[in-house]
Amino acid sequence: MNIKITGTGSYIPDTIEKNENFHQHQFLNTDGSEINHPNEVIVDKFKAITGIAERRYAKHHLTASDLGFFAAEKAIANANIDPETLDYIIVSHNFGDVKHNTIQSDILPCLAARIKHSLRIKNPKCVAYDILFGCPGWVEGVIQANAFIKAGIAKRCLVIGAETLSRVVDKHDRDSMIYSDGAGATIIEATNDEGGILAHESASFTYDEAYYLFFGNSNNQDLCRDTRYIKMDGRKIYEFALSNVPSAMKACLDKSGIDIKEVKKIFIHQANEKMDEAILKRFYRLYKTDIPEGIMPMNIQKLGNSSVATVPTLFDLVKNNKLENHSLTKGDIIMFASVGAGMHINAIVYKY
Amino acid sequence: MNIKITGTGSYIPDTIEKNENFHQHQFLNTDGSEINHPNEVIVDKFKAITGIAERRYAKHHLTASDLGFFAAEKAIANANIDPETLDYIIVSHNFGDVKHNTIQSDILPCLAARIKHSLRIKNPKCVAYDILFGCPGWVEGVIQANAFIKAGIAKRCLVIGAETLSRVVDKHDRDSMIYSDGAGATIIEATNDEGGILAHESASFTYDEAYYLFFGNSNNQDLCRDTRYIKMDGRKIYEFALSNVPSAMKACLDKSGIDIKEVKKIFIHQANEKMDEAILKRFYRLYKTDIPEGIMPMNIQKLGNSSVATVPTLFDLVKNNKLENHSLTKGDIIMFASVGAGMHINAIVYKY
Repeated sequence: MNIKITGTGSYIPDTIEKNENFHQHQFLNTDGSEINHPNEVIVDKFKAITGIAERRYAKHHLTASDLGFFAAEKAIANANIDPETLDYIIVSHNFGDVKHNTIQSDILPCLAARIKHSLRIKNPKCVAYDILFGCPGWVEGVIQANAFIKAGIAKRCLVIGAETLSRVVDKHDRDSMIYSDGAGATIIEATNDEGGILAHESASFTYDEAYYLFFGNSNNQDLCRDTRYIKMDGRKIYEFALSNVPSAMKACLDKSGIDIKEVKKIFIHQANEKMDEAILKRFYRLYKTDIPEGIMPMNIQKLGNSSVATVPTLFDLVKNNKLENHSLTKGDIIMFASVGAGMHINAIVYKY
Repeated sequence: MNIKITGTGSYIPDTIEKNENFHQHQFLNTDGSEINHPNEVIVDKFKAITGIAERRYAKHHLTASDLGFFAAEKAIANANIDPETLDYIIVSHNFGDVKHNTIQSDILPCLAARIKHSLRIKNPKCVAYDILFGCPGWVEGVIQANAFIKAGIAKRCLVIGAETLSRVVDKHDRDSMIYSDGAGATIIEATNDEGGILAHESASFTYDEAYYLFFGNSNNQDLCRDTRYIKMDGRKIYEFALSNVPSAMKACLDKSGIDIKEVKKIFIHQANEKMDEAILKRFYRLYKTDIPEGIMPMNIQKLGNSSVATVPTLFDLVKNNKLENHSLTKGDIIMFASVGAGMHINAIVYKY
């Protein structure tokens, strides 16, 4: 028995928020002081580091579970399965459903229950739960689905990553330009086909790192101190990721027994272009090997960082030949890797 | 190999909130209209149905993850294990950390990462994630830990249920009297000892039932419409639970191959005394058997409904002879069962 991804779908919101749209924002330092550069310079510098030129925001009437539902519908259609045969619906996110212009996360019921409701699935044996694991939530959901199938309690699972980070940003924080909305979904199932999940690794670094990403106050100290937003210590995260993600990826690849030269694509969480490139460089350096051209598909330039949604969305686009110069062929060895709030890291080696 | 609970701990907040404390509240109907009874009558009627005479509220400076941490410390000590040997920390809750007198759920990072941080565990291979699955979250966490051990990716897991429902109640809603704060924790591990988890069942009823428990507005229509609270359709939940929990418990017990007469204790989610008694009655009726005396420990009278915390707390108290007239002996067959927001139901048959 192998465990494979038999269907994918993604939902990319229509609303394009370009970098120019931030030119009128009042950006402040964390201590509330003015930043001594015009916004055009701030935005250009931001683009040079992160690679982000534009990002997507969900329409105002939609929430994360709606986005997840749209992606799930596509994954189910793509896998050509009867949704009533699903044993699990696993939904990863970080803030639940946050309505436009409100500040409360709505996670009652969990988003998986909402999405199952929207999918009109009747079968009560289809267990619907949410996982909170930072940006690596979707990859971890796949690892959990894999475990349930191996343990004999599931055969077919729907794993979704859905997020509306645009609803939890501090407009006075330059980092607000990073965040985006989106959803990706996949069907994971036991199959007699060749390939599938060959190895996986997960880790939680919490001793010093638990609060590198956190829920904190606006940089504008005149705003209500009780209202909090997504906040991060970018420098620490960058250093942490470079120190730990390449070795976690190596541990995973070595566990699979696959030679680095056989890896055809690496789907890495779209956190920051420069950081992802640096991770890749260090990963190949661990094998004293050159980086093959076109190994790392990226779409952060156009889609920003939609947290749990980036990896499944990127995979869905490449699989369906919707990302220029990237494609997959049956038998290709690929990797998924992610890092985020917690701080959590995970990776999967997969034979397509 | 068997999979057993090798340690338990619970945290019961000190602050006792008696029914009398609600005599000055302004209770309203859902449409905002006055209730035509004095509060004393409302409170007495509430007690007659739910059995709740008092409940516990967390101290103002504490949040759900603090409560979970306190319970976890006790479970680790009780199991007498080195916390660095944990492969997973699984935390169930419904609203994350909600600071006193604020309305935002803080789930960044996830509570499992916070608790692991507080436990000062260094080992990054200890994977810390949260599960959202309504009140049955702790039971489902145990089922997931069981699956990870069976799949060969874990040997020892810490499963926690932690909740501060007092922070999300609508003071104008009579149902606010149900909710309570607390935390329970357990160590689950592979062992050569006899006994352990014999069978489990999980189900998600979302087709009609997804929003029986939901996040909604105050009954006081003068309050901000953007602020939402835990809300439920009590009548529908009662009918749903009676129709579906006994059969789920029966499916689980039948799967284990154990005779109903061998069951010594049933630890059921402390949702409502009358409802739990009605569930028990129907469960035994399915086997055409009388209900044995003392089969169902209850502590809702003193502790209220603390969601994910009720089952592990109740089990911890009985295991440590802290609940009058209840005790456990090695080899006893027991059941855990839960129902809650989603609507989710689950059950475990366990040999103590």
